[in-house]
Amino acid sequence: MAHALTLARRGLGNVWPNPAVGCVIVKDGRIVGRGWTQPGGRPHAEARALTQAGEAARGAVAYVSLEPCAHHGKTPPCSEALIRAGLARIVTAATDPDPRVAGRGHAMLRAAGIPVTEGVLSAEARALNAGFLKRIERGLPGVTLKLAMTLDGRIATATGESRWITGPEARRAVHAMRLSHDAVLVGAGTALADDPDLTVRDIGAGHQPVRIVMDGELRLPVESRLGRSARQVPVWMLHRDAPAERQAAWAATGAEVIAAGDAEDSLRLLAARGVTRIFCEGGASLAGSLLRAGLVDDLVIFSAGLAIGGDGTPALGGLGVTQLSGAPRFTLVEQRRIGADILTRWRR
Amino acid sequence: MAHALTLARRGLGNVWPNPAVGCVIVKDGRIVGRGWTQPGGRPHAEARALTQAGEAARGAVAYVSLEPCAHHGKTPPCSEALIRAGLARIVTAATDPDPRVAGRGHAMLRAAGIPVTEGVLSAEARALNAGFLKRIERGLPGVTLKLAMTLDGRIATATGESRWITGPEARRAVHAMRLSHDAVLVGAGTALADDPDLTVRDIGAGHQPVRIVMDGELRLPVESRLGRSARQVPVWMLHRDAPAERQAAWAATGAEVIAAGDAEDSLRLLAARGVTRIFCEGGASLAGSLLRAGLVDDLVIFSAGLAIGGDGTPALGGLGVTQLSGAPRFTLVEQRRIGADILTRWRR
Repeated sequence: MAHALTLARRGLGNVWPNPAVGCVIVKDGRIVGRGWTQPGGRPHAEARALTQAGEAARGAVAYVSLEPCAHHGKTPPCSEALIRAGLARIVTAATDPDPRVAGRGHAMLRAAGIPVTEGVLSAEARALNAGFLKRIERGLPGVTLKLAMTLDGRIATATGESRWITGPEARRAVHAMRLSHDAVLVGAGTALADDPDLTVRDIGAGHQPVRIVMDGELRLPVESRLGRSARQVPVWMLHRDAPAERQAAWAATGAEVIAAGDAEDSLRLLAARGVTRIFCEGGASLAGSLLRAGLVDDLVIFSAGLAIGGDGTPALGGLGVTQLSGAPRFTLVEQRRIGADILTRWRR
Repeated sequence: MAHALTLARRGLGNVWPNPAVGCVIVKDGRIVGRGWTQPGGRPHAEARALTQAGEAARGAVAYVSLEPCAHHGKTPPCSEALIRAGLARIVTAATDPDPRVAGRGHAMLRAAGIPVTEGVLSAEARALNAGFLKRIERGLPGVTLKLAMTLDGRIATATGESRWITGPEARRAVHAMRLSHDAVLVGAGTALADDPDLTVRDIGAGHQPVRIVMDGELRLPVESRLGRSARQVPVWMLHRDAPAERQAAWAATGAEVIAAGDAEDSLRLLAARGVTRIFCEGGASLAGSLLRAGLVDDLVIFSAGLAIGGDGTPALGGLGVTQLSGAPRFTLVEQRRIGADILTRWRR
């Protein structure tokens, strides 16, 4: 199952609105088939693994990181395929909460006389597909908030200089993180200040996440890097009742122009469009709004070995926290050096 | 030598103005004597190890983490004792820059016909005694600055609540760190706001570091915890031309009242009094002054899993950094979890 989860991870950022699933088929202690959800969500992991296993699947054990699907879509359901292939036993990590599945996959397999073991490494499987699960269960995407800051929590000097606080290895790691998310999100301030490209570069990316800007009045010029490249890599501009001519100008770039409300409403709209995993890269104001509204699942912090001091720009906008008991709390789940910097990952 | 350094470490905070030294005597592959600098600086590590080894020292090899002393003080020099004991070879890690030694220890041993190998694990030995070396070489103590903050670099909420940001394990680690320093230092703001005790508690401490407050006008009330306990554990009050009646009031508590200038001048005065290792616990203003003046050697940061946001109190006062190239830079030397928090140590 650990291997199935490793395979599943390959799909993250490239299979939405589907879950990223991995499947390993084992016969006589030997792996005869391996598969993971393919780009766009099809074929499913089980289909790929069964194709690879061929006749060897008969009498074998399949380890699947999520309950096999039970509904007829573009292809027959995976549960049916597993039954037809003559598997002797199925081991799964988690139930698929999608109302079209939700236990029916497991039931279909058992009805066909195949023993099913559920819940193996379920915490790991749920963490891996946390964005998919949150979208199904709560209508919101999973949000990873990235902050790249000095060791005293600053993202720019008093005069606004911010490039580069972290080193090249950390920036490369950020590109890899973008790739494992469905979309990259920034606020208008950051888009205006940095004119970012937000694409994944220099690591042989086969696809690109959607680039999203929360820009209430659509202040970002259409001549920005995002505006100029909107036909190559999708750009979604979320606004709040921006002037009609700004909406028209942005629509003309090829970007999608989407009317939205506050941060939570915006995320609900994105989830409705199928987005399961969002990588938010700031700035301080958007990061503050998301944290204040309890919308951040994972915090990824790159800390660099320099101090800017209290007169620099803080990484987070005001949260209005008066008592420590009211501060948003996170649990440390990862820490490692990246070049000269340190990465810490915290989970809500 | 690694073992000698481990022994040496036991003396840190308890031997100033002397260096913390470790000595291991090995004969036929067996350790026959071990010693480290004793509280107050005497006996020296070599004397202890030789006493333990007795006759077994004859023909043995001594590993000493710092060049043995060559001058007659309260006791005869260690180099002489090593010669008399008939050691076959001496291995040292670093030269003692004290002008009374400075190569003379090594020379004395060689003049007696004992082969000496110098510089084994010298970087580690210099790092361990960095405070002692800095005092001798530059007239300043080594300074460790501790910051306990939220993951966004805050030490208090907008309304001033700051207890407790980090967990009990981190606070316990702070007590152990105090113990390995000669003195604990805070600014007047922190002393006034927190009324701290600054002693080492709950870890079976056999001695206490000197407690120092930089309090220009001696605003801290003599009824504070520090004032009330100044006869039990030393308190040094550094002021800048404070009113005579405040000086008299503090002197009456048993504290030492010391006139000093800016941060650097204060540290020079402390070094002149023999202090080699200072543990500064803030607040933001003092931490900022020390960093701005380039006086901080090690930064120890405890980060807790909560966010307070940009309206909270920053861990550091203003540094006046306009360009990133002008920001004080540090190198990551340690990272580890402590309870729910993470400790990172950065070195200038």
